[in-house]
Amino acid sequence: MSGVVAVHVGAGSHSSSLKGEYKKLMKEACVQAMEILRGGGNALDAVCTATQVLEDSPRTNAGFGSSLTGQGGVECDASVMDGHTLRHGAVGAVPGVRNPVLLARQILDAQSQPLPGGLVPPSFLAGRGAQVWAASNNVETCEDGELIAERSQRIHEESMRNIQRLEEGGAKRRRYALPEEEEEMQGGLLDTVGAVCVDGSGYVASAVSSGGLLLKHTGRVGQAAVYGCGCWAENNCDGSGVSVGVSTTGCGEHLIRTMFARLCARAAISPELGSNITHAVTTHFLESDFLEGVHPRMAGALILRHDPQGGISDLYWLHTTRTMGVCYMTTSDRKPQAQFSELAEDKIGISVNLQSKSFGGGMPVVTTSGDIQPGPSHAGVSGLLVGEEEREKSDSSDDDEEEEEPG
Amino acid sequence: MSGVVAVHVGAGSHSSSLKGEYKKLMKEACVQAMEILRGGGNALDAVCTATQVLEDSPRTNAGFGSSLTGQGGVECDASVMDGHTLRHGAVGAVPGVRNPVLLARQILDAQSQPLPGGLVPPSFLAGRGAQVWAASNNVETCEDGELIAERSQRIHEESMRNIQRLEEGGAKRRRYALPEEEEEMQGGLLDTVGAVCVDGSGYVASAVSSGGLLLKHTGRVGQAAVYGCGCWAENNCDGSGVSVGVSTTGCGEHLIRTMFARLCARAAISPELGSNITHAVTTHFLESDFLEGVHPRMAGALILRHDPQGGISDLYWLHTTRTMGVCYMTTSDRKPQAQFSELAEDKIGISVNLQSKSFGGGMPVVTTSGDIQPGPSHAGVSGLLVGEEEREKSDSSDDDEEEEEPG
Repeated sequence: MSGVVAVHVGAGSHSSSLKGEYKKLMKEACVQAMEILRGGGNALDAVCTATQVLEDSPRTNAGFGSSLTGQGGVECDASVMDGHTLRHGAVGAVPGVRNPVLLARQILDAQSQPLPGGLVPPSFLAGRGAQVWAASNNVETCEDGELIAERSQRIHEESMRNIQRLEEGGAKRRRYALPEEEEEMQGGLLDTVGAVCVDGSGYVASAVSSGGLLLKHTGRVGQAAVYGCGCWAENNCDGSGVSVGVSTTGCGEHLIRTMFARLCARAAISPELGSNITHAVTTHFLESDFLEGVHPRMAGALILRHDPQGGISDLYWLHTTRTMGVCYMTTSDRKPQAQFSELAEDKIGISVNLQSKSFGGGMPVVTTSGDIQPGPSHAGVSGLLVGEEEREKSDSSDDDEEEEEPG
Repeated sequence: MSGVVAVHVGAGSHSSSLKGEYKKLMKEACVQAMEILRGGGNALDAVCTATQVLEDSPRTNAGFGSSLTGQGGVECDASVMDGHTLRHGAVGAVPGVRNPVLLARQILDAQSQPLPGGLVPPSFLAGRGAQVWAASNNVETCEDGELIAERSQRIHEESMRNIQRLEEGGAKRRRYALPEEEEEMQGGLLDTVGAVCVDGSGYVASAVSSGGLLLKHTGRVGQAAVYGCGCWAENNCDGSGVSVGVSTTGCGEHLIRTMFARLCARAAISPELGSNITHAVTTHFLESDFLEGVHPRMAGALILRHDPQGGISDLYWLHTTRTMGVCYMTTSDRKPQAQFSELAEDKIGISVNLQSKSFGGGMPVVTTSGDIQPGPSHAGVSGLLVGEEEREKSDSSDDDEEEEEPG
């Protein structure tokens, strides 16, 4: 049995001092998902387990430790998609649910159970009603306040003070309300989490989970809850024979308007692979008419493409933000590989950094990185051309000691 | 200045005895929208006004008089899209807002107003949080109970009794919980409302509003709130030069999984027009892998296609349900035209009934109806071939006397 699982901790602006901690967390998520696969679980089981691990960490903006709304609460978006059945389960702006991804999974599963009178089971639940559904469908609920981490509270207070200062002083507006005083806080911005997987049967699945934008209005729903925008999983994608799983991250409003997950999935079925993904994201996101007036344009995606002919799996990750953290593991691997890729400061929001990794029959066979292509006019593509070895060297000092621990 | 506005009261199962009332209502919506256009309003203003009129009627499943949730409340979905700016505003499962379409409009408009600290204005709000946002953004809110019509309450009680009987008796499940005792009640099922418009500048806009499925779970979000699924409006659609506005209706879960609004919009830009729409709906809805196991498949759409070259506007409406009610009016018309189209009982959920009407330079020039095409295997296409004159004759007896009143 072979399979590949990959996770991300979002496209955003991860602080250098926390990268080790994020890598350790992502590895743990991969290891636990791999245990599920090795134990006979399918791709959907694996992405849910991986995402649950990421949600449980106070460091990620998902589940416990999510960014707080402008009203001071935690409200989460999440969705899962099963490439085999093409079912999708989604939850938006839900309070008081410890693991939103498990609620999305339960919503997905319940669609196969007929309701009395032919009522149609929901595929998307939002707000307090979603929590009510969770409570009566064996999904753990909690008091709203239990999801607030101390760190989130501190960031919220500082951000509210910053906003107030901006409003009072008429200071120049910045695109994102970064509390500059604490580099640590930067980790809290845009870092949606998610996972993609292909299992031994060749089925793909994907998941995404997010606390949403810091200081968002209560009730705001981001891409993580919206069909075609937060995640995508499709076996035999568009009749091509190729299967694709996608999990997206970035500014939800921008990702909704460009249906970013489906966009990436459709791009990935092309035989031209990387260059096509880059082209699609440049054309339909960085240069999209649907984002007229929006600058900078913040997006990231983790894309797993599986071609059953030859058993090749290709993993791509891309971001237009400063950083993106990903980790992957195959059933043949003893250890997962975690890394951060970076985009130069002057290219944030206007260029794509695309990285990739290929696996054959569950074994890594090819490593590529930095699919460079000159960008047109105001948009461009940038790969860092940091080789696997160099990247690992620069990143591994802080987590070598934990590599043997997971599991 | 020329323009076309069209509205629908959903694809569903409208009772014969109420068709006159529905037609009168749709005409009123068209007339009020046309006043907006004639007064200098744009397409977005017109679709919002039309949809607001439809919401205000206790007869439609939108706004006041919406179907009640399983928990006995009213929660509404709505969205609007502006083909000129490509902006979209959406609201899901919102309680206590009298006109959900106006809230969606306000969410759309607010996206052009920067927030302090570079915070990103929301494009999609759900649940109680959406009502909170409404209250602080000049959108009328009300007590939850104020949206419950007496008729909705009766249908709810009867339906709950039916469900209970089914659960107790293990009776055969029916796809939709029709309270058979009262034909009148059938009007409450699936009848989302919406509007499309092209204005004198050639800009298109669309709107959709729905109380959602009868007895839905609180928090359930249907297609009317989901990007690409409930409505679509795009000038120069996909670079074709053609502009398209779409408003969908049917079972929200099915329309989400097939991204029905965008599907119809993309189909409508083809020069083959009607046959292409029929083919797209057959292939990507009736035969879609994304609806595996779903039968019958319930959808409807109102599609306005405007080709600036020659100034031709084509209006299409299609449904796989028993009935669909539509009404349209051009700036050259003194009176709107309302009608219901029907699909034979044995074709419901498996065939498309497509109807159309063409207007040139704001003046009706061509009338077609019943775009017939043999359907493949289990799906098919059925047009009723009821000529305009015959349809009008059979339908107009009950509302002739009110034709002079609107406005």
